[in-house]
Amino acid sequence: MESKPLLPMKPKKKPNPKKNTFRLKKIGLAPGTLLYMGKKHHIPLNVEIFHYDSESYERQASASIDDCIPCKTKMGVTWLNVNGLSDLASIQKIGNFYQLHPLLLEDLVNTGQRPKLDEYENCIFVVIKMLSYPEEGDIVTEHLSFVLGDNYVLSFQENEGDVFDSVRDRIETKKGRVRNSGADYLLMVLMDTLIDHYFLVIETLGEKVETLENSLIENPSEDLVFEIQHLKKEALTIRRAIYPLREVVNQVEKSELKFIQKETLHYFRDLYDHTIQIIESIELYRDMLFGLTDLYMSGLSNKMNSVMKVLTIISTIFIPLTFIVGVYGMNFKNMPELTFHNGYYVVLGVMFLIFVLMILYFKKRKWL
Amino acid sequence: MESKPLLPMKPKKKPNPKKNTFRLKKIGLAPGTLLYMGKKHHIPLNVEIFHYDSESYERQASASIDDCIPCKTKMGVTWLNVNGLSDLASIQKIGNFYQLHPLLLEDLVNTGQRPKLDEYENCIFVVIKMLSYPEEGDIVTEHLSFVLGDNYVLSFQENEGDVFDSVRDRIETKKGRVRNSGADYLLMVLMDTLIDHYFLVIETLGEKVETLENSLIENPSEDLVFEIQHLKKEALTIRRAIYPLREVVNQVEKSELKFIQKETLHYFRDLYDHTIQIIESIELYRDMLFGLTDLYMSGLSNKMNSVMKVLTIISTIFIPLTFIVGVYGMNFKNMPELTFHNGYYVVLGVMFLIFVLMILYFKKRKWL
Amino acid sequence: MESKPLLPMKPKKKPNPKKNTFRLKKIGLAPGTLLYMGKKHHIPLNVEIFHYDSESYERQASASIDDCIPCKTKMGVTWLNVNGLSDLASIQKIGNFYQLHPLLLEDLVNTGQRPKLDEYENCIFVVIKMLSYPEEGDIVTEHLSFVLGDNYVLSFQENEGDVFDSVRDRIETKKGRVRNSGADYLLMVLMDTLIDHYFLVIETLGEKVETLENSLIENPSEDLVFEIQHLKKEALTIRRAIYPLREVVNQVEKSELKFIQKETLHYFRDLYDHTIQIIESIELYRDMLFGLTDLYMSGLSNKMNSVMKVLTIISTIFIPLTFIVGVYGMNFKNMPELTFHNGYYVVLGVMFLIFVLMILYFKKRKWL
Amino acid sequence: MESKPLLPMKPKKKPNPKKNTFRLKKIGLAPGTLLYMGKKHHIPLNVEIFHYDSESYERQASASIDDCIPCKTKMGVTWLNVNGLSDLASIQKIGNFYQLHPLLLEDLVNTGQRPKLDEYENCIFVVIKMLSYPEEGDIVTEHLSFVLGDNYVLSFQENEGDVFDSVRDRIETKKGRVRNSGADYLLMVLMDTLIDHYFLVIETLGEKVETLENSLIENPSEDLVFEIQHLKKEALTIRRAIYPLREVVNQVEKSELKFIQKETLHYFRDLYDHTIQIIESIELYRDMLFGLTDLYMSGLSNKMNSVMKVLTIISTIFIPLTFIVGVYGMNFKNMPELTFHNGYYVVLGVMFLIFVLMILYFKKRKWL
Amino acid sequence: MESKPLLPMKPKKKPNPKKNTFRLKKIGLAPGTLLYMGKKHHIPLNVEIFHYDSESYERQASASIDDCIPCKTKMGVTWLNVNGLSDLASIQKIGNFYQLHPLLLEDLVNTGQRPKLDEYENCIFVVIKMLSYPEEGDIVTEHLSFVLGDNYVLSFQENEGDVFDSVRDRIETKKGRVRNSGADYLLMVLMDTLIDHYFLVIETLGEKVETLENSLIENPSEDLVFEIQHLKKEALTIRRAIYPLREVVNQVEKSELKFIQKETLHYFRDLYDHTIQIIESIELYRDMLFGLTDLYMSGLSNKMNSVMKVLTIISTIFIPLTFIVGVYGMNFKNMPELTFHNGYYVVLGVMFLIFVLMILYFKKRKWL
Repeated sequence: MESKPLLPMKPKKKPNPKKNTFRLKKIGLAPGTLLYMGKKHHIPLNVEIFHYDSESYERQASASIDDCIPCKTKMGVTWLNVNGLSDLASIQKIGNFYQLHPLLLEDLVNTGQRPKLDEYENCIFVVIKMLSYPEEGDIVTEHLSFVLGDNYVLSFQENEGDVFDSVRDRIETKKGRVRNSGADYLLMVLMDTLIDHYFLVIETLGEKVETLENSLIENPSEDLVFEIQHLKKEALTIRRAIYPLREVVNQVEKSELKFIQKETLHYFRDLYDHTIQIIESIELYRDMLFGLTDLYMSGLSNKMNSVMKVLTIISTIFIPLTFIVGVYGMNFKNMPELTFHNGYYVVLGVMFLIFVLMILYFKKRKWL
Repeated sequence: MESKPLLPMKPKKKPNPKKNTFRLKKIGLAPGTLLYMGKKHHIPLNVEIFHYDSESYERQASASIDDCIPCKTKMGVTWLNVNGLSDLASIQKIGNFYQLHPLLLEDLVNTGQRPKLDEYENCIFVVIKMLSYPEEGDIVTEHLSFVLGDNYVLSFQENEGDVFDSVRDRIETKKGRVRNSGADYLLMVLMDTLIDHYFLVIETLGEKVETLENSLIENPSEDLVFEIQHLKKEALTIRRAIYPLREVVNQVEKSELKFIQKETLHYFRDLYDHTIQIIESIELYRDMLFGLTDLYMSGLSNKMNSVMKVLTIISTIFIPLTFIVGVYGMNFKNMPELTFHNGYYVVLGVMFLIFVLMILYFKKRKWL
Repeated sequence: MESKPLLPMKPKKKPNPKKNTFRLKKIGLAPGTLLYMGKKHHIPLNVEIFHYDSESYERQASASIDDCIPCKTKMGVTWLNVNGLSDLASIQKIGNFYQLHPLLLEDLVNTGQRPKLDEYENCIFVVIKMLSYPEEGDIVTEHLSFVLGDNYVLSFQENEGDVFDSVRDRIETKKGRVRNSGADYLLMVLMDTLIDHYFLVIETLGEKVETLENSLIENPSEDLVFEIQHLKKEALTIRRAIYPLREVVNQVEKSELKFIQKETLHYFRDLYDHTIQIIESIELYRDMLFGLTDLYMSGLSNKMNSVMKVLTIISTIFIPLTFIVGVYGMNFKNMPELTFHNGYYVVLGVMFLIFVLMILYFKKRKWL
Repeated sequence: MESKPLLPMKPKKKPNPKKNTFRLKKIGLAPGTLLYMGKKHHIPLNVEIFHYDSESYERQASASIDDCIPCKTKMGVTWLNVNGLSDLASIQKIGNFYQLHPLLLEDLVNTGQRPKLDEYENCIFVVIKMLSYPEEGDIVTEHLSFVLGDNYVLSFQENEGDVFDSVRDRIETKKGRVRNSGADYLLMVLMDTLIDHYFLVIETLGEKVETLENSLIENPSEDLVFEIQHLKKEALTIRRAIYPLREVVNQVEKSELKFIQKETLHYFRDLYDHTIQIIESIELYRDMLFGLTDLYMSGLSNKMNSVMKVLTIISTIFIPLTFIVGVYGMNFKNMPELTFHNGYYVVLGVMFLIFVLMILYFKKRKWL
Repeated sequence: MESKPLLPMKPKKKPNPKKNTFRLKKIGLAPGTLLYMGKKHHIPLNVEIFHYDSESYERQASASIDDCIPCKTKMGVTWLNVNGLSDLASIQKIGNFYQLHPLLLEDLVNTGQRPKLDEYENCIFVVIKMLSYPEEGDIVTEHLSFVLGDNYVLSFQENEGDVFDSVRDRIETKKGRVRNSGADYLLMVLMDTLIDHYFLVIETLGEKVETLENSLIENPSEDLVFEIQHLKKEALTIRRAIYPLREVVNQVEKSELKFIQKETLHYFRDLYDHTIQIIESIELYRDMLFGLTDLYMSGLSNKMNSVMKVLTIISTIFIPLTFIVGVYGMNFKNMPELTFHNGYYVVLGVMFLIFVLMILYFKKRKWL
């Protein structure tokens, strides 16, 4: 009967995914104190080490941190990919090995940290949000951070399973320029892959917006206003991820960071174009969602109008007729019409005439 | 009965023209990988070569890329006009010949790329959107790119058939300054021609907005809200094309690009004025469209008001009268009025009086 | 009955004054090609020459362009006031005489050109819009341009009849500083006179807005929404003229233009203050107009409320009473009340009681 | 019955206080021509002279301008406080004495001039608006100007009676730093006193806004929308005075004006903080006023809802019952129920049952 | 029946917490005059002195100001924590001891002062607002100020009881870096603790917004609009505290203040990130609150629609039926149907048929 809802309607009171309860634990702690703020507490730390230059390539899937010690002095690029952020001791160990600033480590495990780029003396630190739509349900935001040093990139993720398989493949098979370039190019490639996935999310959102618009046009049912509200929130989630990300990419391009080589800047400009494109799309969908609220409200008014018309037509036709029959239901002794032989038929005829005139009147006013 | 709709009403669920499905193919590809993102896959590459200076003029309508090799060393300006973007091998070949950066080529065939200007060492790269209204239907956006080098302009289009005939004519007949000027002037002339066509689109949109406004004033029918929504989307499409274009033209004027000569800057300033003028018009129409939503909503309310008035007038007149006739329809034994000889006529008279008073009351309240 | 409308209501479909049909003629023309874009095609060119210094003063009302040749070498200021823009040949002749850039001449006759200031090597070019309210009808926009050179000011207008009589008078009678100052001061005086006339237009708009507000307060009739929409458009027209004009005046004040002497800058700062004042007024009226839309919508709702109240009061009173009389109109054999001697009067009394209670109830709820 | 209105409701058509009719007189006058634009034409010029240094103090309450001639050469600070702006000859005389620029004098008597700071060679000119709420009625705006020279401050006001008594007192009794500081400190003190009075106006507005909010919560009566509109206009009036004033104070603080000593800058920064605080308050009240419009509209809708509910409940209960009694009012010969001994009571009982069920239904839907 | 309200509904007219009545006392006072503007007049001044360096640590809980005289010459950091601002004489004494500028002292006791940072020759002065939600009721704003000098931090609070216990603990137990750092680090730690508490407030607000959203979805009752309005005001209160605070932190980071060492800047950048995060959250909740207004209005319209439907269904079914029974209630002599044996039953049958058809019609239109 109703168009199938996109989302479960009138959701029960549910926990707020944006609630940063763990944030509260931080109150009273000294700055630079490590505290994991995410929800995936039981994911064990998993380290994957890549070491490559244009000639050689090496990969250790489940390595310990000590495994990357030899890389430090060798030529070539090291990529240390760390999954799981709840093992603070190991994170601290990595931090010590690469001499990372305590504030950097704090932000690295603080899953509430917004996207940003910080320049330290010995590295660049980048926080990015990974967005994805699961099979069913709302947008999922994941906290990723990158550390770019002289000849290494460290990447930190909350979850197992990532979107970097194509990068691994390109390193392994020497596709593209990655094997012939430095660590800065690797960082760019990783960020590019992440940003590419934003397009997927944007497109899914776009489809939802359009399905919703079609539903609204067909039948502005009562529950669709909750969907509009829901999609507005999802659009806000994406905006909160992409706007600071644009600033990050812009910062790379504009400030002359010492770890980014001049040749790689062209590619970062390209990334910047992509973020602008994503922002334009998200703003378009937001505009459309605001338009949908108008559509919905005018749909409601139209429905009300049509309900009122039915009532008015029926009332306007029958109330006067009921009055007429009431007149001849009066019990006055002296009512000559009542005794006319055809009085009944004349009255029926008059009433039919009134009925027809009313119908014509409503036709003329385009109510029928 | 209804005013003739400007657009097909309540459109069925249709594919979204803005859906960038091909964009998704890019995920996982190395930056600089060519991938044609448009829909015109079967248009064969067609190259047209112009070579001219103030003295001589040469044109090859269906040339191969090799045909422009001799131009490279000759004096004068070369204009290479390429139609069709799906033949990636040939595009790559042109790129190699003119030593174009891989990212430039990627953007050139990426029809989802927004308007922009990139400065490379050996050329300037400009992406512009061509807008047009077909005979029937929505705005069509076409992806165009220009490469301005030392003594050449390359123009790339998705479709056969373009708007540059007047430019060809001016080159051929030595009208205007184009034959006496460099490649930068040619680029300016091509962009000027494109921007001139925006005025056509703006004017068509303006006519649609006004037709819609007139329809709304005459009869705020239910479906017009979809048209308002539709025109808002078209205005958004134009905005998405013209705002970055303004930035492009501004960039040419402001930054001292090495391929633009000082004399040509005056003309680019003129282009900038045109883009501002287009932006002002589009903002005017957007403002008008938002005003139309107000008009529509107040039209709905007015309609409701007039429906309610009819109902109220009829009810207010006849419900009391019906009560009166009901009174004399009661079957009490002892109702003296019923036996009065003129009782019936007195009651009819009283009811007529009430009727007249009601009418006067409604007249006074301006409901009739 | 209705308050007298300020404007013709529900205007028929009419030609759009903003439609720049002539703009379309330009497509395909080389930049710098003269094309008159206005509507006053048959106004012959009329040239008026003033030549003055602090000592002498000379005026030729209907001069030919050749008449100003001697002025070129003499000391003093020349003011060439040209009426009519459709005689392109003469415009071109003036352009040649004063060595004006082709783009300048193009903008000079392009009546769609927005206000701007262009700096050329040998002159400053200023485009301004003259606004006026005719006796009846909408705002009229007229295209004016000024060329300020070393010792001359050229002014170009579409129409005969202008607002510069006070300036002519001041030059003739040596009132104010104009005779003792240079061409830049004359330009300032001319612009000042134009901007002074904006105050007239603003005030007329202000009066319209207030008349409209009063009408809305007295009777929010259905047509007033069109007036609101109409005045919003007029406010937009003024904004489109004054905002770029502010930029023009600001540009004079900020950039060190070589044709403007330092002493005159104080006066341009004064002009800038005036434009700010006009902008503040226009924004005030726009805010008021948006407020009027709210007033109107709430007026509609209030009207609906009062219609509904009438309906509800009448229905609530009489429907139950009609039920009661219906009860005693039933034809049951055994209805003891019917035979009571005072049954009829008791029922009438009960109904009167109900009536009174209802009235009191509505009084208490402040519906009456 | 109604809550007592804050303001006279539905104001009659009244003269617009913002109408700058006198502005129109200016059209055609040379810049720098004095023309008093205010309404207080018959207030005679009244000059008050203060001359003081840390040692001595002198005051002449009703002085002539010649009285300040000796001050010019003496050490110490002169404060010339002028009331009344319509005596243009005297104003001109003061202007000549202090060698004030003609444009300065023009702005000084132009009561429509917005707040601004102009730097002249021999002085700084400041225009400020004095705001006050009279006992009854709307905000009153008064035009004040200050001229700060080497060792003097001139203050010009339209009206007798000002807010500077506390300053006079401080000068006389050597309270604060004023006697030990220069003319710039005196200017700061005068401006500080004016800005302090803005807080009074803001607070009065705030009280009006809250009274209005309370009225809206208690009873969203029809006329309150005019009050909202009225208070929005008052907030706009204050904004128009305070925003340019902030610019004035900022300009003093930022630009290194030669008449302002470095020690005084700290105090101007303090003034700047005050203007920011006023701006924050006015924006808060504007936000609240926009919120009130929402409150009002939802109040209207709620009222309508409750009216509709009454109608619906009464109709829904009695229309079916009336039908039932109508059935037994039919005159069919063969209607067995009519002859049942208890038929009447059974029908009454059934109707009572229906009545009770309806009431329960409405209770369940929370309509009762 | 109704969902339990979050806040007391329809609050009685209450004193405005933002009313700055004490501000008015200031009018006419010389700048730099101390005047306590808060409400906590009877809290006696309480001074707590900390003196520490990396080796030693000393604390005096209830000290006199003279107790800190020896600290002035000793090495190490002094933290003077002052509770209570109404004892102006003691504040003045502290001011004299530390040679604080009169304007600084004025702002220090002026509880209406907005957050700001002022740089003086011998110190930096910072005003911050402390926000907290009490157990029940609205947000409480408390005025805090810090003075950072060479080797001391002064903190001033209105109330006993603060949020600095964790800092005291860290100083005492040498946790974190505070004992090994200078006074600037101590200031940072204090500000960090304050900002951490903003997260608590934000989260409480967020919970209220969500509870409200759930209430709206379940039952858009009339009073919820006041809650929306109320929460909007609370969000405004937080915004008024956090936006200038961001400016303060940004100013510390950007301007090279002489009392802030380079190493500490990293931590201030971290603070800046936190303020941005708070601002993002507050803007998110504001957006949500605006969305709730839409939800509420559409909820009202839906309610109205459903009320109207009930009325329309009942009326549309029974009004025609009532007409029919009215027809057979007429008293015409000659009405053949009345004498048909089954006339009554046929009419009943026809009416039942009409009833069923009506029900089907409404089912089809999805009204039932």
